[in-house]
Amino acid sequence: MDIIQHMSPKVKTDKLKLGVLGSTGYTGAKLVELLLLRNDIKIEFLGSQQYAGKKFSSVYPGIKTDLECVEADESFINNLENIDLVFFATPNGIAHKFAPILNKKGIHVIDLSADYRFRDLSVYEKHYGFKREDKELNDKAVYGLVEFNSEKIKAAIKAGTAVIGNPGCYTTSSILALTPALKAFGTIIDTESIIVDGKSGISGAGRKAATEIIFAETNESCSPYNLGGQHRHTPELEVFYSDILESKINIDFSPHLIPMTQGLVTTNYLKFKEDISEDKIRAVYEKTYKDSKTVKVLEPGVYPKTLWALNTNNAFIQINYNPETRRATFTCAIDNLVKGAAGQAIENMELLLD
Amino acid sequence: MDIIQHMSPKVKTDKLKLGVLGSTGYTGAKLVELLLLRNDIKIEFLGSQQYAGKKFSSVYPGIKTDLECVEADESFINNLENIDLVFFATPNGIAHKFAPILNKKGIHVIDLSADYRFRDLSVYEKHYGFKREDKELNDKAVYGLVEFNSEKIKAAIKAGTAVIGNPGCYTTSSILALTPALKAFGTIIDTESIIVDGKSGISGAGRKAATEIIFAETNESCSPYNLGGQHRHTPELEVFYSDILESKINIDFSPHLIPMTQGLVTTNYLKFKEDISEDKIRAVYEKTYKDSKTVKVLEPGVYPKTLWALNTNNAFIQINYNPETRRATFTCAIDNLVKGAAGQAIENMELLLD
Amino acid sequence: MDIIQHMSPKVKTDKLKLGVLGSTGYTGAKLVELLLLRNDIKIEFLGSQQYAGKKFSSVYPGIKTDLECVEADESFINNLENIDLVFFATPNGIAHKFAPILNKKGIHVIDLSADYRFRDLSVYEKHYGFKREDKELNDKAVYGLVEFNSEKIKAAIKAGTAVIGNPGCYTTSSILALTPALKAFGTIIDTESIIVDGKSGISGAGRKAATEIIFAETNESCSPYNLGGQHRHTPELEVFYSDILESKINIDFSPHLIPMTQGLVTTNYLKFKEDISEDKIRAVYEKTYKDSKTVKVLEPGVYPKTLWALNTNNAFIQINYNPETRRATFTCAIDNLVKGAAGQAIENMELLLD
Amino acid sequence: MDIIQHMSPKVKTDKLKLGVLGSTGYTGAKLVELLLLRNDIKIEFLGSQQYAGKKFSSVYPGIKTDLECVEADESFINNLENIDLVFFATPNGIAHKFAPILNKKGIHVIDLSADYRFRDLSVYEKHYGFKREDKELNDKAVYGLVEFNSEKIKAAIKAGTAVIGNPGCYTTSSILALTPALKAFGTIIDTESIIVDGKSGISGAGRKAATEIIFAETNESCSPYNLGGQHRHTPELEVFYSDILESKINIDFSPHLIPMTQGLVTTNYLKFKEDISEDKIRAVYEKTYKDSKTVKVLEPGVYPKTLWALNTNNAFIQINYNPETRRATFTCAIDNLVKGAAGQAIENMELLLD
Repeated sequence: MDIIQHMSPKVKTDKLKLGVLGSTGYTGAKLVELLLLRNDIKIEFLGSQQYAGKKFSSVYPGIKTDLECVEADESFINNLENIDLVFFATPNGIAHKFAPILNKKGIHVIDLSADYRFRDLSVYEKHYGFKREDKELNDKAVYGLVEFNSEKIKAAIKAGTAVIGNPGCYTTSSILALTPALKAFGTIIDTESIIVDGKSGISGAGRKAATEIIFAETNESCSPYNLGGQHRHTPELEVFYSDILESKINIDFSPHLIPMTQGLVTTNYLKFKEDISEDKIRAVYEKTYKDSKTVKVLEPGVYPKTLWALNTNNAFIQINYNPETRRATFTCAIDNLVKGAAGQAIENMELLLD
Repeated sequence: MDIIQHMSPKVKTDKLKLGVLGSTGYTGAKLVELLLLRNDIKIEFLGSQQYAGKKFSSVYPGIKTDLECVEADESFINNLENIDLVFFATPNGIAHKFAPILNKKGIHVIDLSADYRFRDLSVYEKHYGFKREDKELNDKAVYGLVEFNSEKIKAAIKAGTAVIGNPGCYTTSSILALTPALKAFGTIIDTESIIVDGKSGISGAGRKAATEIIFAETNESCSPYNLGGQHRHTPELEVFYSDILESKINIDFSPHLIPMTQGLVTTNYLKFKEDISEDKIRAVYEKTYKDSKTVKVLEPGVYPKTLWALNTNNAFIQINYNPETRRATFTCAIDNLVKGAAGQAIENMELLLD
Repeated sequence: MDIIQHMSPKVKTDKLKLGVLGSTGYTGAKLVELLLLRNDIKIEFLGSQQYAGKKFSSVYPGIKTDLECVEADESFINNLENIDLVFFATPNGIAHKFAPILNKKGIHVIDLSADYRFRDLSVYEKHYGFKREDKELNDKAVYGLVEFNSEKIKAAIKAGTAVIGNPGCYTTSSILALTPALKAFGTIIDTESIIVDGKSGISGAGRKAATEIIFAETNESCSPYNLGGQHRHTPELEVFYSDILESKINIDFSPHLIPMTQGLVTTNYLKFKEDISEDKIRAVYEKTYKDSKTVKVLEPGVYPKTLWALNTNNAFIQINYNPETRRATFTCAIDNLVKGAAGQAIENMELLLD
Repeated sequence: MDIIQHMSPKVKTDKLKLGVLGSTGYTGAKLVELLLLRNDIKIEFLGSQQYAGKKFSSVYPGIKTDLECVEADESFINNLENIDLVFFATPNGIAHKFAPILNKKGIHVIDLSADYRFRDLSVYEKHYGFKREDKELNDKAVYGLVEFNSEKIKAAIKAGTAVIGNPGCYTTSSILALTPALKAFGTIIDTESIIVDGKSGISGAGRKAATEIIFAETNESCSPYNLGGQHRHTPELEVFYSDILESKINIDFSPHLIPMTQGLVTTNYLKFKEDISEDKIRAVYEKTYKDSKTVKVLEPGVYPKTLWALNTNNAFIQINYNPETRRATFTCAIDNLVKGAAGQAIENMELLLD
């Protein structure tokens, strides 16, 4: 975004030096785009297996950088010097191989893949299929859900070299939508009632040559996928909600693909064991998010639109309570690539910068 | 669809003579388009308040008919002669004024609006706001959910002049998705657990000059609306499901607008009181729909896509069961304007033709 | 389109027996969809290299047929019996290998690829890169632009077994838009002034796993491609227009990809050597197309929309003349998969049926 | 864009104080969004007739500002104090009423409407229908096509209080695409050969309740409009090109609406009177734009995509020459709301800031 870029006065002299691995996927590219707007960091390298040796701007001509993509193999990682931070926007199963090396070198890691999202590695191994040999480092990792974990993230940074597991896209939206209620009303909530119905734009499926995501297959079409607990964001949510409610929570999560590029809504259902009022629930949300720079609780009658969140870290939340069923519906719209990925990663980076 | 039109050999000599009121809305126009493909009916008039005096094809140049739109006021209705059937694709609150006149004249009515969907007029009056003075006729009306009500509809036709209340779009999808389970497993279902999460293309909002549905406001955006039981398809579903389960059922229904023209998915949640298997549920669905011309139960692992239903009466259903939560998710994709409106209305007409 | 399908009374007993090769591409599938609506033909086989051995409906669940795809190799072709017609919806370079065999067996061929569109094989070989050894058969082939070549097509059918080269999609639109003017005003037209600016939906790029046509790369984007005479529809148009004007015509053709699934507009520019009136041009078009079942010349001030042509054989044409530049602009909207491919192929088949 | 917003260090103390009239249209809102990213200006008021008294963020919740919209009538304008600059993002016919008042008060004006784009007021009056009484001020106004007029704009600023007429969206794209060729090859160009074929996203039609731009009417549809010289950007281009070629130039301009929100491509045709090479033309473009911050001449074989320009001031240009016709095709992709409106207005503002 050139207009923005060339009007930011460059003032800092001691910039954070960083690299981005997996930079040519949609998440990686959005991260690069957002990083280039800043004058307090410097991108030292962009990794891309597919486009190694080619200019990043030959893949994304709208993003202005002269950097050439590098293939970041083990030797490259071993030889890194004078780098403060590495982002992983790589597929799952890559970060956990390189993060231990980086950590030993004193380089912070923010991982946008799922590798460092699970305290319990058996959950990760079950759902992602990669064997892990970095238990020690994983134990140190913090879950980068900025809104609720900022103290833990800051503590990890203070304690030395940090590894931050950036949350999933659906996960971020659902957690923002449900956490205040779970925290405030845990005792009067039916803990078996949590349902998360997600709707995501197609960039969520990544940048790859696959017939099922070509335009003519996805345009003018809406489709559920990975139902019945098969989507990997299910255990991520279950762990988070189990922690809050201090009991083992199972949820139903139903993702859907909808014909737009970016944007994500989760519609989250929660049943109350006793009657409550919408106002009472709303009050909790307004209090929780009153100082948030990114999360906005909408006025009654105004519904979240992903369009408002597009290319921003905004999250828009609405709460509706149905007294007939004692069920509340919490909707939350974000941009899957920004608040749901690259933008939240930058919020984590900002905690490092502070 | 001219290619189709000019290849249908005209064989019948005694065609059903009919008219369409509200013909220039999206539902009405889709109905006209589908009716023009048939050689067993004849469209005698097209009503349109907005375009009265203008050729229908000046509004929809892709639909070939020389008919001019007429303003169908009370005097027009009173003077109708030699007509077998009138479709109402009008806004809610119109059909109930004219249907009694038509019924007395021996003219069948298929109403695509909500006027004749409710046995209990107080429910209609509460949710739609129109005062009704046609209780007698409403008592005779049948709910035109063809898949499950065809015997009742045939009986009404046999009994004389019929009034058929064609179901709503979300309603049709949800009923197709949930009814077999509710009928088969009613005793082991948590009757307070029904949630319907709907996703609809924007044609569902009708053809009107409104800023909130212009392209730049709706494209690349997903948004819930009318949450918390406010959408009028909620009572329609509650009545249907209460009948099956023989107790007063309340549901949560959350509709969402998604950026496509036609198409609709409902994701329907149901909790079982005891454990059950996906296969057992699936067997019920396969049996229920094995002779259906339009409803297809998909093989495990194949998810419904609205694209497959586009411009057809097809409904695609998938069933997923999560043993961890004992909750089953039933998804159903249809075309909101066809199976969800005009196409089902034609299925009702076919019962008349038989 | 089930609603249509199950209401067509099956009356004919002597149906045309046919097969479709390349049936699982977008053009092939649209052809199958349209053929299934008819009761005067019978599909005997569906060829598909990619999906051989699988049910056609597993690839296109919205199209109802129980046929399984076959791999149509040379031995399959050699053993064909009791078949009247084979459609080729295959990639370029396939039909010319099998058509000679079919022709000898007395089986008609309608080829939707480019193989039989060029009288002069050197033009074909230059632009398509395949060596041809079927000159004799190619000499017999007719160009299936139904609107202007129906007499030639009928003559070829009368003369024995026909090979019909079905025109390209852009080509069809441009020819419908320009031919009446070129025929009527050839002497006062600047023959060096023909420009065709095309806009096509993305189904035109076919059904294939390619990153450049995935949703996130094509949605919200408009892009020219193959400019400067590189698109293969350029020579197809040049040959047609050279024939009309009886001199060698070169044109400029600029195709563009736009974010929709189906639909195509060509904007055709023609300069007049002397002043003329829009009315005079329009009169020629109205006369040319007054009996056309598919081509409609719009009233002044009404502009063609591809939406009106969607899923039909309709073509909508408008003419605008600018006296300041003595240039006329002819716009024509069609559905690229129907009038621009499968639908016109069926119009050719109808000439066979007569 | 909050992530961007809260990371721009606020350094300047003497910010440019400005207001935006017509702030709730798409152009105005994009301008507000971009202005809020800067730390060298301060928005003092946002005008909006439709939303006067309401918070700007109630109309655009994704754009973070606490400002309430004001109705900017004559008395409001008369009482403005301590303001450096007013942007007009109002409909045509408004700016010329208020600009004279502002000018007398020493307030700069950047007008995004057409009011100050025409040196010759009779051209404006003919095409826009408003009578003008501000000839003196109009004579002082400069045309804000930054790439080619920056010296004139700077001179106007130096000379006192400036009035800058920000160019139209199609106009900007076409001028960037054609100007280098017209300047370099004026003598060997057929001056009667200029054709501009434009394709624009639907935000170009503005934010208004009109049936013809609702989603279901525009999605999956491509349509030309205002052909034959009727679009008002025609005279704007003719004036600019006449100036360069020093003779009265008439062009043909054919705009098309395509189904995307933002983005615009012009395909510009030019015939050479003698043969030339693509390389020679390309060399001129590379030289012209080598220092441009926003215009990029693409490598041979790479075609402009509006997606790359989305939400940026980028313009991507490709040149193709057809030796058979001696015609060159110049394509240029921009974002209609940014480089084609609000972004270029900010580039004009930056000249003020310097």
